Amino acid sequence: GDGRMGVRYDGQTATTDNEWNFNSRARVKFTLSGQTDGGLEFGGSFRADQAGDSAASNGAAYGLEGSVYVSGAFGKVEMGDVVGASEALFGDFYEVGYSDLTTIGGFSNDIPYLTGDNGGFSVANQVVTTIGTGTTAVTTTVAGAYTSGPNLLYTGTFGAFSVAASMSDGKNKGADAGQEYAIAGAYTFGNYTVGMGYEVADGDFVDVDMLTLAGVAKFGNTSVKAAVSQLGKDADANWYGLGVSSVFGATTVGGYVQKLDDKSAADADVTWWGIGAEYDLGGGAVVKGGIADDDLSGTDAVADLGIKFSF
Amino acid sequence: GDGRMGVRYDGQTATTDNEWNFNSRARVKFTLSGQTDGGLEFGGSFRADQAGDSAASNGAAYGLEGSVYVSGAFGKVEMGDVVGASEALFGDFYEVGYSDLTTIGGFSNDIPYLTGDNGGFSVANQVVTTIGTGTTAVTTTVAGAYTSGPNLLYTGTFGAFSVAASMSDGKNKGADAGQEYAIAGAYTFGNYTVGMGYEVADGDFVDVDMLTLAGVAKFGNTSVKAAVSQLGKDADANWYGLGVSSVFGATTVGGYVQKLDDKSAADADVTWWGIGAEYDLGGGAVVKGGIADDDLSGTDAVADLGIKFSF
Amino acid sequence: GDGRMGVRYDGQTATTDNEWNFNSRARVKFTLSGQTDGGLEFGGSFRADQAGDSAASNGAAYGLEGSVYVSGAFGKVEMGDVVGASEALFGDFYEVGYSDLTTIGGFSNDIPYLTGDNGGFSVANQVVTTIGTGTTAVTTTVAGAYTSGPNLLYTGTFGAFSVAASMSDGKNKGADAGQEYAIAGAYTFGNYTVGMGYEVADGDFVDVDMLTLAGVAKFGNTSVKAAVSQLGKDADANWYGLGVSSVFGATTVGGYVQKLDDKSAADADVTWWGIGAEYDLGGGAVVKGGIADDDLSGTDAVADLGIKFSF
Repeated sequence: GDGRMGVRYDGQTATTDNEWNFNSRARVKFTLSGQTDGGLEFGGSFRADQAGDSAASNGAAYGLEGSVYVSGAFGKVEMGDVVGASEALFGDFYEVGYSDLTTIGGFSNDIPYLTGDNGGFSVANQVVTTIGTGTTAVTTTVAGAYTSGPNLLYTGTFGAFSVAASMSDGKNKGADAGQEYAIAGAYTFGNYTVGMGYEVADGDFVDVDMLTLAGVAKFGNTSVKAAVSQLGKDADANWYGLGVSSVFGATTVGGYVQKLDDKSAADADVTWWGIGAEYDLGGGAVVKGGIADDDLSGTDAVADLGIKFSF
Repeated sequence: GDGRMGVRYDGQTATTDNEWNFNSRARVKFTLSGQTDGGLEFGGSFRADQAGDSAASNGAAYGLEGSVYVSGAFGKVEMGDVVGASEALFGDFYEVGYSDLTTIGGFSNDIPYLTGDNGGFSVANQVVTTIGTGTTAVTTTVAGAYTSGPNLLYTGTFGAFSVAASMSDGKNKGADAGQEYAIAGAYTFGNYTVGMGYEVADGDFVDVDMLTLAGVAKFGNTSVKAAVSQLGKDADANWYGLGVSSVFGATTVGGYVQKLDDKSAADADVTWWGIGAEYDLGGGAVVKGGIADDDLSGTDAVADLGIKFSF
Repeated sequence: GDGRMGVRYDGQTATTDNEWNFNSRARVKFTLSGQTDGGLEFGGSFRADQAGDSAASNGAAYGLEGSVYVSGAFGKVEMGDVVGASEALFGDFYEVGYSDLTTIGGFSNDIPYLTGDNGGFSVANQVVTTIGTGTTAVTTTVAGAYTSGPNLLYTGTFGAFSVAASMSDGKNKGADAGQEYAIAGAYTFGNYTVGMGYEVADGDFVDVDMLTLAGVAKFGNTSVKAAVSQLGKDADANWYGLGVSSVFGATTVGGYVQKLDDKSAADADVTWWGIGAEYDLGGGAVVKGGIADDDLSGTDAVADLGIKFSF
């Protein structure tokens, strides 16, 4: 399990006045595993707050949270609330703040992958509805039926090569939902890893694909991750991200900066960043804090300081 | 705990197009037990997804899921989301498919007992509302207040005889709800068990009773279960069911066929069946699949294939 | 974990007819703990039904139920769904009945503290809305935004002195919510403890404070607790309470009587009481029952009898 307690500055906007808040949590994780007579390993994991509700038919009991897996020499096949292929190989940036800070605009250390649980630029699943015509037309864009039940992820490592493939089943309770699929590959030599991922979100209204190049380098106690993506089909944008983390004894510092360069007529560019530090108290307790912000107008930075526990 | 992953063909209807879906799950079960100084055993069990929500006042924390018990030489008294007396002694048929297949019409390997958690033909609790008179009358039938809080089940075995009795408290948050009660008895001689159960659902609008005769026979590795029921009072129907399962080394095959013979003016007969097989991989993993269907018009068969885990 | 099963008479009112109901429960509690290299202890606890839902962002995973703590020579700092300072030092009265009886009017063995999880007289957070003017004005009073996220509690014991302080963060999803704070102190000499607590609920519409004097005395196997409170600012009421519990071998009997003396124009006085007994079966099982009532008109007494389990 894990826990945390501390204070967080949630910033202000034109309509909210969150300022300083207490923020705490306690969670328990269930980890299940077994092995067949033939040597296949299998298992699953989910948290108590992801268990779901047997009356509401949701959560890990219905494959919508947590995941199960079978693994062997062939690699690992997972089903449930899994990440997409690109995220499986390249991950995200250093998590800033004891409470995993998200800016008021909704951006964090997560890389905005197109598919899987992050579901970054989930434009493909937006439902665009236009009512009326001409000057009286009203166009509404809402998030579409994105969660199409359990997704599938395959990952395998063969020598210096790692590969991943993922897909959704494209169904959501009997209706077509945005079909996702993704493949990714990475090559590791010494302290360097380079890789490429290609994701497609084939939505009901728009289709988007995303090609991501990523590289990770380790210099002593410092790890640098850089990535760049091109979004195409019905989207037209580029994304750039750079993250660093360094360990000095019991202290770790890290940060990231990410930019979405919107090439479409909307030109909705946004840059966001975060920087934080943590000090290991031993025994599973860490003092951690950070600050994060985006350059959207009318939004403060957010910041926090607290203690994280792992049990 | 338990888990599963695989694919399921959910069939098509006039309005849905489910076809192939991924289906996975991960669950954890809590089993509690103790013993008094006087030798009484007590305990309880529920799954994490049945724990309920202390804010919503539901689930095992409020007796609506899971159950608790006290047992001793007198037998076992359980309270919570328990089965009715007939189901306690005769059970259901072999579970078909790794995901416990249910036909599009809503039928499965479960025997449609009148009372308890299965709540088969819950006609007694339907609320029939008629608005208007004559040619403009509109009659609506909806499922009634069936879950009347925790139910009580007693089971005891005395030599070759097994007995069971169950009842609800007939209340649902201050309103009368369908009162249920049931008794059942069984006699075992060698590899044969025969029994009889009588269930009553004394609803707000209609009263139904159900008399069930059941027999189980074991021939070597094969088990055969047959049952027949007569529904009376405000209902008029017969039900027949036959189920078989056989174990061949690591392989088990099983299936069932059930028929509801509606004697009322509606004549809403329905026959449904399922057949499946499983192969034990050892260590708690089983490859399992099956197919099930009913003879209602406009419904496909459903089928699945996947892996089940027990931890 | 814990469990219970039995029967409860829920009484009748003009609109409900609960009478006798089955009442059962099964719960599991997660207790987490650790220690830093420097000797600080930390941990957390919550029940499975308090875990919350990661999709709904509630429960222990979001600090709204359960709690986490850090403790050392300085005392203990807790964050989450904690009690107020007065309740931390003085507690409540003997719990009556196996199902923790609450009268039809909503009163129980809990002392109606002003702040923290009991949130007794939460008048400070009522939202009073008046629409229209003069003879057509309609005034609505509804419970306000009381749960303002995780609260903070400090407790410390230094020789014969115990102190506590608590506060909320006064925010609820970006809106101001009733700010609470409280301090309390107690002094123990021999078998006697006396103490005082002061609580403030600084609400959006009304402000209330509460000064509580409490004393506990132990005479052999009997424990007596008495307390008196004065509610002021926008409220004007006094509260008195007396509770007793005695242990005779395996048997414990206990009860309480509490009175709210409303000095305002409404003069909404209420007196309530409960009395019960329990017999320890050993091994964690207890037979327990009780009866409770208030003097509001049109409400029956409530009563129960059942078995409680602790695992």
